[in-house]
Amino acid sequence: MEMHVVNLKEKADKIQELHKYKLIAELNNYQFKLVKANREFVWHKHDETDEAFFVVEGHMTVATREKDFLLNAGEMIVVPKGVEHRPVYDSQATVMLIEPSTTINTGNVGGPMTDTELERI
Amino acid sequence: MEMHVVNLKEKADKIQELHKYKLIAELNNYQFKLVKANREFVWHKHDETDEAFFVVEGHMTVATREKDFLLNAGEMIVVPKGVEHRPVYDSQATVMLIEPSTTINTGNVGGPMTDTELERI
Repeated sequence: MEMHVVNLKEKADKIQELHKYKLIAELNNYQFKLVKANREFVWHKHDETDEAFFVVEGHMTVATREKDFLLNAGEMIVVPKGVEHRPVYDSQATVMLIEPSTTINTGNVGGPMTDTELERI
Repeated sequence: MEMHVVNLKEKADKIQELHKYKLIAELNNYQFKLVKANREFVWHKHDETDEAFFVVEGHMTVATREKDFLLNAGEMIVVPKGVEHRPVYDSQATVMLIEPSTTINTGNVGGPMTDTELERI
């Protein structure tokens, strides 16, 4: 594997379209994905894995059935496996997700927001 | 597992001592560790895992036998498993490492820079 420095803001600047996950790095069988979003995502869960969100630009809310978590740039959260959650972007934000390469963005629910493309940028 | 927002800069501000790894988040069997450093680390490798470095404050160099990689704040790099590398901090920097919980900081070489304590902050 070729080593290279990944600048998160520079990668974010390359993303033109919303809601398309972009692969920016890999660690063993895990992927670092960047997505630019401005929407309310679906409630879902991942029964097989935890999932990390790191906000690069803007802010987001990770809603759970128990509590809403507001994340600003420079902040991260780990959603434990099996926990229903709903990422909400009430304005445009860029977020890095860290999770196993087998993880589907819509988890157990599927539907039109499912994105299985993953362009490397 | 209790969910909570992790602010990287706030966590960095909590670290008083250099070269002590602090646990800030966990993702499955992976750990996110923060360390404040100002030294040349030892050459070493991890035969069993890739290792990610993300610079939170300051800058660092990840030297390999082939090439040196300078990382500024907001930049990350993945060192593939088996690749000899040497993290160099020529001024104080705060870095987040992402790797399996079984990973030893000095990899295959051990020695006095080995740190097996891991306080959660």
